[in-house]
Amino acid sequence: MEWKNRNTEAEKVRPFFEPKSVALIGVPRRTGRAAFNILETLVTCGYPGELYPVNPNADSILGLKVYPQIESLPQDIELAIIMVPRDMVISTVRSCAKQGIKAAIIVSDGFAEAGNEGLKLQAQLIKQAQADGIRLVGPNSLGSINNFHPFSSSFLPPSPLKEPVALVSQSGGFFEGFFDFVSSKGIDLGNMCDVDFADVLEYLEVDPDIKVIFLHIEGLKQGHRFLQVARRVSRKKPILAMKTGRTAPAARAIASHSGSLAGQDELYNAAFRYAGIIRVENSDELGDVTKALLHLPRLKGNRVGIITPTGGCAIMAVDALYRESLELATLSSKTIYTLRDYFPKWAPPRNPLDMLAAGMSHGYKNVYKACLEALLIDPRVDAIICIAGWPTIKTIQEISTGVPKPVVVWMQGRWTGEALSWIEKLGYKTAYPTPERAARALSVLRRYSNRREKYE
Amino acid sequence: MEWKNRNTEAEKVRPFFEPKSVALIGVPRRTGRAAFNILETLVTCGYPGELYPVNPNADSILGLKVYPQIESLPQDIELAIIMVPRDMVISTVRSCAKQGIKAAIIVSDGFAEAGNEGLKLQAQLIKQAQADGIRLVGPNSLGSINNFHPFSSSFLPPSPLKEPVALVSQSGGFFEGFFDFVSSKGIDLGNMCDVDFADVLEYLEVDPDIKVIFLHIEGLKQGHRFLQVARRVSRKKPILAMKTGRTAPAARAIASHSGSLAGQDELYNAAFRYAGIIRVENSDELGDVTKALLHLPRLKGNRVGIITPTGGCAIMAVDALYRESLELATLSSKTIYTLRDYFPKWAPPRNPLDMLAAGMSHGYKNVYKACLEALLIDPRVDAIICIAGWPTIKTIQEISTGVPKPVVVWMQGRWTGEALSWIEKLGYKTAYPTPERAARALSVLRRYSNRREKYE
Repeated sequence: MEWKNRNTEAEKVRPFFEPKSVALIGVPRRTGRAAFNILETLVTCGYPGELYPVNPNADSILGLKVYPQIESLPQDIELAIIMVPRDMVISTVRSCAKQGIKAAIIVSDGFAEAGNEGLKLQAQLIKQAQADGIRLVGPNSLGSINNFHPFSSSFLPPSPLKEPVALVSQSGGFFEGFFDFVSSKGIDLGNMCDVDFADVLEYLEVDPDIKVIFLHIEGLKQGHRFLQVARRVSRKKPILAMKTGRTAPAARAIASHSGSLAGQDELYNAAFRYAGIIRVENSDELGDVTKALLHLPRLKGNRVGIITPTGGCAIMAVDALYRESLELATLSSKTIYTLRDYFPKWAPPRNPLDMLAAGMSHGYKNVYKACLEALLIDPRVDAIICIAGWPTIKTIQEISTGVPKPVVVWMQGRWTGEALSWIEKLGYKTAYPTPERAARALSVLRRYSNRREKYE
Repeated sequence: MEWKNRNTEAEKVRPFFEPKSVALIGVPRRTGRAAFNILETLVTCGYPGELYPVNPNADSILGLKVYPQIESLPQDIELAIIMVPRDMVISTVRSCAKQGIKAAIIVSDGFAEAGNEGLKLQAQLIKQAQADGIRLVGPNSLGSINNFHPFSSSFLPPSPLKEPVALVSQSGGFFEGFFDFVSSKGIDLGNMCDVDFADVLEYLEVDPDIKVIFLHIEGLKQGHRFLQVARRVSRKKPILAMKTGRTAPAARAIASHSGSLAGQDELYNAAFRYAGIIRVENSDELGDVTKALLHLPRLKGNRVGIITPTGGCAIMAVDALYRESLELATLSSKTIYTLRDYFPKWAPPRNPLDMLAAGMSHGYKNVYKACLEALLIDPRVDAIICIAGWPTIKTIQEISTGVPKPVVVWMQGRWTGEALSWIEKLGYKTAYPTPERAARALSVLRRYSNRREKYE
C-alpha cells in the first residue's frame, strides 16, 4: 500500500477501507453459517492485517486470542468495529480513543433512526467522538467491503470481483443488494453522524483501484462541502448518483430509516448538475452507464451511425437517439463510395445502414464488417450502434476492440438477458437489451467526455 | 379447427394464419441451411395442411411434386405465398384469383418502400386484387408464423413456445427480432396495402389461442376503422402497442421503410387512449407488462403493500409507486395486531413492512411468510411488492400462487438477469429487476383491470 501521494483527508478515511489492524469490540462467540460473525468473515476472506477480538466472556474464538476489554489492547490499532448495545456505544468509543484508535465503525443501531431518544444519543456520540479525536462511520452501518485488499466489516464477505467501481451508500440493505452488482469496494455510511459522502470522495479521488464512483443518496448533510468536493473529483473520475426518496411519502420513510432529511427533488437536480454528478434513475441505468464509462473510449460528438439488418429496428434506435440529444450522422462521401458496390442501386448506402439486402447478395458477415470498418474511419461519425444478434457479436468485437470510437451493440430477442450475460463473460462488455438503454449510455458518455475535455 | 363461432371478418383473415392448403409461387429449388427455403420451413415444422410448390424449372423439391404454373394447380387452395420479382406480382395475383385463391402473402419487395415507381406499382396491385376478390398481406412482408397450428410463410420456423400472445408488426426485422421474445402467433403486415391492423384484430378478437395482443405500429392507414375495432377488442383482450418513428428523423426513415406516414406522436397518444390501447415505450416494458397481464389476477385498487428486508430499497419502491399513480397502503389494524409480536416494540409493523430485525429474532422465512399471509387477506391492500432475493422466491411462490391479489417480486443483485430467467423456468413469472419496472407493470394492470370492470 503506497500512500505517499495521497492527500491528508484521504489518509484519514483509508483505515475504514484498508485497515492494517482491526479491533472487533463485542464480537459474538457464535460462529458458523447462521451466526453472521464478522471475525469469521475476516478470517475466511484472507484479510492480511492484524485482528483483535474483544469479548469479556471468551478466551479464544476461531483459534484467535480474545481480549477481555479494550484497555488490554495494544496501542494504535487502526480501526475499531463496534457492535455493542446502543447504551454502551459512547463509553466504548471513549475507551477506543484512549487506546489510540482514530477510526471506528459503529454497527450498533437505535440512534437517529429510532425516535427522539436515539436522536439525542447520536448527538452525544458525535460530540464525544469529536472531543476525543476519533472518526466514526455510522451508527447503524454495515461499514465497508474491499475486494482489492480483502476486508469486510460485516457478514458480507468480499468477492473475487475486481471492477474499478466504488459504491457509497446510506442504507445497509441497498449496500447488500447492490454491492456485488456494481462495485468492488464500498461503504455503508448508515446514519452518517461523522464520515460523510465528501470524506469518502476525497479518499476515492486518489484511490488507484477505482475509476467510477457510485453514490446512493437518501439525504445530504453539509451539502456545500459535498458539492465542492464532488465538483473537484468529478473532473477526474465520473461520479454517478441515485437519489432515492424523491416522492413525499418516500421522503417520510427515510426519516425513520437513516434519520436524514430528503429535500426537494429539483434541488438535487440542480446541485448534481453544478457538481458534475451524473444522476441515474434506476439500477438498469446504473449498470448500463457504468459499462459505458468503464469500457468505451470518450465520445467526441453527437453524431451516431447505425448498422442494422432491419429497418424497423433502426427506426426505434433513431427515436432513442433523438430523445437523448444525439443525432443521426450524415455519412461522408468516402463511406458511401466504399460501400456502394454492396448495396442495391435503388437503395444506396445511407445512415441507418440497412445491410440486409446487401448481406443476402454479398455475405452477411462480409457486409457487416465492411459497414463497421467504414463507419469506424468516417470522420463524420462519432459513435456507432450495431443492431445485431448473437452470431455477429464476434465480428463486431474483433473489429471494434481498442478503437478510439465508441461502439455499442443492441441485442434483441427472447433470450437477450441470458445472451448478454454470456457475451459479457466472453469479454464483450457494451451490449444493451434495448435501443433506449444503448442511447442513454452513449448520451451520458458524451456528457462525461465533455466534462473531461473541458478540464484538461 | 372450430370456426362456427367466429365472425365473418375473422374467417377472411384465418387463412393467413391457419391455411388448410398453401401454394408457394416462385419457391426456389435450393434447400439447406443457407437457402432460407420457405417450403423447407413448412415441411420441417410439421405443417399439417397441403403444400403446392410452383416453379417452372423443377419437377420435385424435397420429394414434393412441383407444379410448372399456377394454372396447373387444383382449385380453391386457401393461401398463396408469392415470391416472384416485383414486375410479375400483379399477373401472378390475377392467376391465383382465377384459380379460386382468396388470400395471398406478397413477400416480393420493391413497392411503396422503393420510390415513385414502386408506389405506382403498389397502387395498381391493390386495385387489381380488389377487382379480383383476393385479400393481400404485404407486399414486402415475411407473412405469418403460428406455433399453435405449426405454420410459417417465411424462413423463420415456428417454435414449441405456446404463449397466448400475438404480435402484429409492420416490419420484417422487428418481427424477426421480437416474435420469439413475446409471441407464439404473429404477422408482418409489410407495406400493408390491404390486410391491416383492424383486420387482424378482428381475427385475434375471437382467437381462442390468444389472450394478449401486441402491435408494432410505424404508421396507420384507415385510422378511424382501426380505432373502432381496437376499442371493441380491447374490452375483451388487452392490446399493447409500441409506436416507433416518434421523432421527426425516425418518421422520415419510415417513409422509405414501410412506405407509411408516421404522424404526430401526441395524436397517437390520444387515439390509443380512446381505443383502450396500452402504449409501451420499449421492449423491456413490453415483456414486463405482458407478464403481468398474463399471470396476475386483476388489480382492484391503487393501494400497495411492500415487504422488505431493507429500508433503503423500500424507499426506492415507494418512489416508484407514486410515480405510477399507485400509493402506499395503510395497513388494517388486524394486520398490525397479527404481526405485532414479531416486530420490535420501538418499530411496530407498518407499510413498508421492514422485516429484517423481526426476521433476525424469529426466523427470516417465518416472518416473511407471516407478513405475506397477513397482507394477502388485508382488505386495505390491493397488491403486494415483495423485495426479495433468490432464496425467498419459493416461499413467495407457495403462498401467492392462485390467490386473487397481485403479488410481484423485485429481485436485486448482480446476477438478476440470469436469476430471473431461472425463476421463470421454475414457474415463477412475475419477478422484476427494478422497482420501477414492477410498479409500471402493476400500474398498467390497474388500468386494464379498470377497463374490464367497466365493460362487464
